[in-house]
Amino acid sequence: MSIITMETKLIFTNLVGEALDSLANSLGNPQAAVIADVNTAQFVLPLLHKDSRTAAAATLITVRAGEDAKSIEEISRVWRQLDRAGMTRSSLIINLGGGVVTDLGGFAAATFKRGIRFVNIPTSVLGAVDASYGGKTGINFDGAKNQIGVFADPEATIISSIYFNTLTTTQILSGYAEMLKHALLDSRGTLDRLLAFSPVYPQFDSERMLPLIEASSEVKRKVVSEDPRETGPRKVLNLGHTVGHAIESLALSRQSAVAHGYAVAWGCVTALILSHLELGFPSDILHKFADYVLTNFGAWPLTCDDYPALLEYMRKDKKNKGDGKISFTLLTDVGQAQTDCACSEERIEAALDIYRDLMHLP
Amino acid sequence: MSIITMETKLIFTNLVGEALDSLANSLGNPQAAVIADVNTAQFVLPLLHKDSRTAAAATLITVRAGEDAKSIEEISRVWRQLDRAGMTRSSLIINLGGGVVTDLGGFAAATFKRGIRFVNIPTSVLGAVDASYGGKTGINFDGAKNQIGVFADPEATIISSIYFNTLTTTQILSGYAEMLKHALLDSRGTLDRLLAFSPVYPQFDSERMLPLIEASSEVKRKVVSEDPRETGPRKVLNLGHTVGHAIESLALSRQSAVAHGYAVAWGCVTALILSHLELGFPSDILHKFADYVLTNFGAWPLTCDDYPALLEYMRKDKKNKGDGKISFTLLTDVGQAQTDCACSEERIEAALDIYRDLMHLP
Repeated sequence: MSIITMETKLIFTNLVGEALDSLANSLGNPQAAVIADVNTAQFVLPLLHKDSRTAAAATLITVRAGEDAKSIEEISRVWRQLDRAGMTRSSLIINLGGGVVTDLGGFAAATFKRGIRFVNIPTSVLGAVDASYGGKTGINFDGAKNQIGVFADPEATIISSIYFNTLTTTQILSGYAEMLKHALLDSRGTLDRLLAFSPVYPQFDSERMLPLIEASSEVKRKVVSEDPRETGPRKVLNLGHTVGHAIESLALSRQSAVAHGYAVAWGCVTALILSHLELGFPSDILHKFADYVLTNFGAWPLTCDDYPALLEYMRKDKKNKGDGKISFTLLTDVGQAQTDCACSEERIEAALDIYRDLMHLP
Repeated sequence: MSIITMETKLIFTNLVGEALDSLANSLGNPQAAVIADVNTAQFVLPLLHKDSRTAAAATLITVRAGEDAKSIEEISRVWRQLDRAGMTRSSLIINLGGGVVTDLGGFAAATFKRGIRFVNIPTSVLGAVDASYGGKTGINFDGAKNQIGVFADPEATIISSIYFNTLTTTQILSGYAEMLKHALLDSRGTLDRLLAFSPVYPQFDSERMLPLIEASSEVKRKVVSEDPRETGPRKVLNLGHTVGHAIESLALSRQSAVAHGYAVAWGCVTALILSHLELGFPSDILHKFADYVLTNFGAWPLTCDDYPALLEYMRKDKKNKGDGKISFTLLTDVGQAQTDCACSEERIEAALDIYRDLMHLP
């Protein structure tokens, strides 16, 4: 187990029950409630119940699965259940789930009786990696995401990888794409470790993923802490997202939506190609990365007929500086990012040609 | 104008418009919205509009008058209007009103887009005095007061007394009773100044009330800052409330409700009588105080037939220590409080006899 202290305490361990009980003990074993969506309550909670007397004794509050849970109706239901369960200012809320549950449950805790303590236990890959990026809670309102919320830090976040084998391959890969992106921003060592790991069944071994999660979380934490207001350096996290978002939008417009993480993985391949063309990014690493993506994520079936539509989406990207040019975050090498790299449309089309080549597309 | 800095910046001035414009200027003249209830919007806002370009240019969001405004439906309506008005993270909310509006508007500001800046302009006497006691925001939920909320500090609170002449005598006196209580906890000088002031029309001069408000606010601030968790010394603020609450409850049970402040004023008279009997509180001050209360608040028509019911309410008071005795905050002199003074029922009945005598009741 390793503990990183920052705004929030991150506990990396696969002995989740032990960590939770020890934390509850240090807080005086308060009355507790678990907030989980219906799926997590069915597939993950029984595992946690076996390992933790705190969780086993807690009141269960289930919310609907998916982004719809972040509604005023659902938070009202949670508040009401907290009240009916007799929760007081000294109680503890345990948010067990992905980003939706930690956003919703964090907001419920931060506002119930003007704020009670809470602990987050992410169960999704992205939830685990993003947990370092602490303090944001909230719900959607009137069609706008996270319109209503507060900044509030959990007592601790217990980050594990043991629950990942309750996830589908698509869910695992969606998170893994962001981890690959973090590794590209970090170092060859981190990248090599990720490329040597298989996130796909039957080879997938969830327990062995914890150190990779920790490293990835650390990259994100470093980037965010250097630029808390999102004014500059944090833009490196857009790596792979310019083309990724364009693929996502185009696929959606054709009623064949792709998971965000998959689009990011393909976007990263394209970003590395552009990095090679513009900044001399090493070609051997580009090839190795592209092979890994092809093996695990497959290829998005891009043809040259798609180029105009993709470029149109890229032109509209809100990350552009408004000078009509398309901007990218690119790399001179692994761990060496440059933001706001404007590329010509000819260059982008050349990169898409190479993408099709590397992805073995016709 | 005087400024006291603590958790929140308190600006005492009757040049409210000037103070608001200067504050808005220091914040970069952000887009602003005023939140006010329908009454304040009708009677107070026009005065502020004349004095402040910030207020005149602001979007108006009205809420229903009274405690009912602190509901999930009403806060949703406020959030929606903030959104429709195009308010952003850098906008400013101006809460103009009593405690209901500062509670509701503060919570709206603290949660809209995870928190935007707000300024409070109390328009009620109690709101002005209590503003020092900063940071609490919230709404009622499922029948429980302030069940949902957060701690959030306004950029500043602009405290004036010019708007008090939009209030009824009952509203003014309700707040003034708490100011009298604070003076009893402070010093003979503060008390003398309050007893020399007339809070009743036609003598009432709202502008002259500002220094009294500032002194009263300072007493509360001192008491609260010495005991932020309400574990001990803050109990002195219960002065007059044991008998006051009993009178309030009994009056309510007879369908002839009295304003809380009036009950506190009569409760303070009784507390001073008990203080005289138990701790030798000076009889001349007791008489002077009782005369002032009788002149301005009148007397609650107590008879000895009411004693058993009043004592029963006092026995149930949540401030008792659970040993069957009735506890009071009493004074050895002005500014010298003792908490948890247990008094026998015979002694309390004797005090009620004297109350009837001092209040010229049969």
